[in-house]
Amino acid sequence: MAQEKASHREKVSGVFAPIATPFDEQGNLLLDKLFSNIQKLNKSKLRGYLVLGTNGEFRSLSTKEQMEVLKTAVKAASPDKTIMAGTGAESTNVSIELCHLAAENGAHYGSLINPFFFAKQISDIALIKHFTQVAERSPIPVLLYNNPGVTNVTMSTAVIREVSSHPKIVGMKDSSPGNLSAYILNAKPGFSILAGSANFFFTALLMGGVGGVLSLADAYPDPCCKLYDLGVAGKLEEGRALQYELMRVNQMVSGKYGVAGVKASMDFAGFYGGPPRAPLPPMKPEDRTKLREDLIAIGFLKG
Amino acid sequence: MAQEKASHREKVSGVFAPIATPFDEQGNLLLDKLFSNIQKLNKSKLRGYLVLGTNGEFRSLSTKEQMEVLKTAVKAASPDKTIMAGTGAESTNVSIELCHLAAENGAHYGSLINPFFFAKQISDIALIKHFTQVAERSPIPVLLYNNPGVTNVTMSTAVIREVSSHPKIVGMKDSSPGNLSAYILNAKPGFSILAGSANFFFTALLMGGVGGVLSLADAYPDPCCKLYDLGVAGKLEEGRALQYELMRVNQMVSGKYGVAGVKASMDFAGFYGGPPRAPLPPMKPEDRTKLREDLIAIGFLKG
Amino acid sequence: MAQEKASHREKVSGVFAPIATPFDEQGNLLLDKLFSNIQKLNKSKLRGYLVLGTNGEFRSLSTKEQMEVLKTAVKAASPDKTIMAGTGAESTNVSIELCHLAAENGAHYGSLINPFFFAKQISDIALIKHFTQVAERSPIPVLLYNNPGVTNVTMSTAVIREVSSHPKIVGMKDSSPGNLSAYILNAKPGFSILAGSANFFFTALLMGGVGGVLSLADAYPDPCCKLYDLGVAGKLEEGRALQYELMRVNQMVSGKYGVAGVKASMDFAGFYGGPPRAPLPPMKPEDRTKLREDLIAIGFLKG
Amino acid sequence: MAQEKASHREKVSGVFAPIATPFDEQGNLLLDKLFSNIQKLNKSKLRGYLVLGTNGEFRSLSTKEQMEVLKTAVKAASPDKTIMAGTGAESTNVSIELCHLAAENGAHYGSLINPFFFAKQISDIALIKHFTQVAERSPIPVLLYNNPGVTNVTMSTAVIREVSSHPKIVGMKDSSPGNLSAYILNAKPGFSILAGSANFFFTALLMGGVGGVLSLADAYPDPCCKLYDLGVAGKLEEGRALQYELMRVNQMVSGKYGVAGVKASMDFAGFYGGPPRAPLPPMKPEDRTKLREDLIAIGFLKG
Repeated sequence: MAQEKASHREKVSGVFAPIATPFDEQGNLLLDKLFSNIQKLNKSKLRGYLVLGTNGEFRSLSTKEQMEVLKTAVKAASPDKTIMAGTGAESTNVSIELCHLAAENGAHYGSLINPFFFAKQISDIALIKHFTQVAERSPIPVLLYNNPGVTNVTMSTAVIREVSSHPKIVGMKDSSPGNLSAYILNAKPGFSILAGSANFFFTALLMGGVGGVLSLADAYPDPCCKLYDLGVAGKLEEGRALQYELMRVNQMVSGKYGVAGVKASMDFAGFYGGPPRAPLPPMKPEDRTKLREDLIAIGFLKG
Repeated sequence: MAQEKASHREKVSGVFAPIATPFDEQGNLLLDKLFSNIQKLNKSKLRGYLVLGTNGEFRSLSTKEQMEVLKTAVKAASPDKTIMAGTGAESTNVSIELCHLAAENGAHYGSLINPFFFAKQISDIALIKHFTQVAERSPIPVLLYNNPGVTNVTMSTAVIREVSSHPKIVGMKDSSPGNLSAYILNAKPGFSILAGSANFFFTALLMGGVGGVLSLADAYPDPCCKLYDLGVAGKLEEGRALQYELMRVNQMVSGKYGVAGVKASMDFAGFYGGPPRAPLPPMKPEDRTKLREDLIAIGFLKG
Repeated sequence: MAQEKASHREKVSGVFAPIATPFDEQGNLLLDKLFSNIQKLNKSKLRGYLVLGTNGEFRSLSTKEQMEVLKTAVKAASPDKTIMAGTGAESTNVSIELCHLAAENGAHYGSLINPFFFAKQISDIALIKHFTQVAERSPIPVLLYNNPGVTNVTMSTAVIREVSSHPKIVGMKDSSPGNLSAYILNAKPGFSILAGSANFFFTALLMGGVGGVLSLADAYPDPCCKLYDLGVAGKLEEGRALQYELMRVNQMVSGKYGVAGVKASMDFAGFYGGPPRAPLPPMKPEDRTKLREDLIAIGFLKG
Repeated sequence: MAQEKASHREKVSGVFAPIATPFDEQGNLLLDKLFSNIQKLNKSKLRGYLVLGTNGEFRSLSTKEQMEVLKTAVKAASPDKTIMAGTGAESTNVSIELCHLAAENGAHYGSLINPFFFAKQISDIALIKHFTQVAERSPIPVLLYNNPGVTNVTMSTAVIREVSSHPKIVGMKDSSPGNLSAYILNAKPGFSILAGSANFFFTALLMGGVGGVLSLADAYPDPCCKLYDLGVAGKLEEGRALQYELMRVNQMVSGKYGVAGVKASMDFAGFYGGPPRAPLPPMKPEDRTKLREDLIAIGFLKG
């Protein structure tokens, strides 16, 4: 592993919370709620925060709002936490611009979702060129972000094989089902791969992943950090049991209700979740009540 | 048909060019090229321009750049042309904000692509609410924009049935293959439906569509306007022949190469096309030569 | 147009009913019901019957049952009707075998759906080779059958361009939304293209299609034949009105409920429809009642 | 775990080879090659064989051919091997018929792919009813088979939750990427889940899967059986290393070339692979040479 990459590995290993962006019912940003949410999370063993990710509804914000969110998160975060910020746009030029803005506002790493609006015309070669150019012109190092659930594109292992040796492309967050091992197999040494979902966090760690960005950690950072420790220690039985418990919760919350569910679970756990921004619909009151009861029933939430 | 809608119908009937956004090789905006392109198009019988659409690579621009493009287009357009501007964002709030910016910069209509980042969680009800709220809070009327080729979502006829009666939702641009008649069937009287592709422009007109937004018109406005006249007049034989001719060209250009092809054909026709913005790749030189030769071979371009 | 193909054109032009296969509640074949259904249809101006198509649930039958169905249909059909039979299987060998069986049982044409089980590995070249080999070794001429709604594959225009000149591949049934004109544009002269849905039957005829295989004709052959006459005569206004009327019915019936809806509408119209074969679910009684009422309300069915 | 299910678990645990069906260049069945292939595999520690699966090209065979293949496989298999046979058809009736035929020809278990031709209309409820009815009327117990790569349908966890308690539905082969843990989480105790790909075999075992049906085992049964032992023993480091080695091979072979690749690798390893049945194309000679060299280069094949 190159010296340089090794220094990043420590900063991007462990559990990250993909910070939710708080809104009121009219869709106005609530920066004070964001601030207090992060202050609460600071007390956990989380390695850091991913601001402006999918669960942060980054594409639902104006650029100005994005930077207000980032600035607030950076201010609220304790200094030991690593801050990643979503800086991937549909063009190389705008992605570079966002990396600059994110760096100015205190992010340590940029997180680059692949451009997908013109997906059918973006070859692996074009994508490799894109990531490389952004990394080279960004003031901060970057991680790739693969999430076919929203982009309808699964990054190819050929792209990872190619860009994983770049000194400023330090890793990847993979939210796709079933590809993480293939990315690890194809990546160059030192490339840090993070699970993008609690559904496969434990197996990711067993197979060589270095951490996870888990929406579950927005409301429940402690069991996520515990599962990380079990994975790193290779404690199979205990880890498997906790993995299944967290998967069950994750399916109830994020799997069934997406961002709205994550935010509801934050409300239940003493954070401010609130509604997602329209047109993303909030949970129906009866679904919310049911979810709360279910979380209590499985002993994950106190009644 | 309501009085109000009737007044819009005239302004949105006919052929629109979805204005391409000119860049240099580094992806820098070339506003002067945009200005001169539109000045050339002003001489045609085009009904107007769609600025900041898919062929305008609107999602590859920053908001600031989008408004520079719009301002330039408005300044260049002759006063008889209708200006539509892409104002659809991933959230209701940001879409409203863009409608305001577009209005301030001179657009007559906003064009609302459906939010699709969280597609799986956006029900018809959420979409109807979104379009209605944007229309109500927008200073200018809007048209919907359906393009599953980029969004992976086909708007349902139920959405059209519901929103087509709204006084400020005056119509729809439909780029989906094979749904236009179903939208006409389900829309309320006075709702203006435009074909989003030359591939089905003639049949759209025969079935009750009022016009088209045709990338072919960026380089070849005149035959597009002629096909419109034939469709309106119901001249079956002549119209069919021209429809097939334009479809052949459209498949060679946009069908095969997308925005890069449209821009190349603009170069051939005396406009400035230039490269698309990365990561969208430019045409390979050999493909470009071949396309030029093919367009000459079928008599569409002078050698 | 080659002499040979011209002789086929007459036999495959006009309206075809895609014959539904009658079952009882346990999924047993009811050949007598099939017989009487066809005898009723014989009185119409239908050009012929497509036996063992998608609406015939051909993939839900054993090969033995398929041949019983075909034999019965052939026996019931009046001699002026053209009989097409679904003979497309997942392999070239089995497709050829089915063409032989169909010919022995009296079919005039085979209908070849594209193999799609291994879709990702079947290139255009492989598909062209497949269709050509089947046609060459089949005792009867064949038509292609394109239906991405069930196969998830849209045949490319390149395939049509290539195989449409083959003397024994006489045409195509296209059930895809929005591609029919492109197939006509790319096909060699004499290749007969049939619309696979009432949704685009009229425009198909206006653009050069020669007929349609319309599930609506299973229950309502007469208005389908009337629309054919209007299309052939180029009567725009009257044709458009009837097209929209039939589209409305088609969306209520086949669009919403698929084969189960087609069969229910047959029951309403005095044919035997019955339930589809499991696991395809029958219509719920309340949906069936509602559909009946809706068909009466729009004047398509007598109360 | 119910007594009955426990007795099955032993029979379906371990590694299964999804037996390839040998053809000559004209697509004729070569039953003697099948016989000798299985005799060679008998010497391995494989738990058994899946005959008439996806890699057996079951949908490319006539029913008569399917039964000849099964009969031959049963005759060739040593008595300690468990025989599963693909018996899933598009209808409940035909699936039951195939289960009967398979039982008569010596299969111990039926493997039920989900009906997918009418996928859009088959609800979870319809699917549950289908699997239950087939199981109840089948003379042999069945396993489900989930392979969205060919069916475009991912079985829902709700289906598994419901049918996994049925005494005659003893397990499931899951070839989908990333869902296996979720199926385990939702299945009733005693339901045996097998990985359908070497890509996730080791993690499947660590998370509670009981075995795998691995195309890699057609040519290389021994390392597959070794990985099974490592998984069962929970040997993390050694298992991970072998998992990655096998994944690399699997991606070269099956991942890149599908059935054609599996068959080529069988040829290399001393079995008869031969070409797949048309229209599935055989590997190009140059690709075949390259694959052979690559397998030698990574030490998986002797030069």
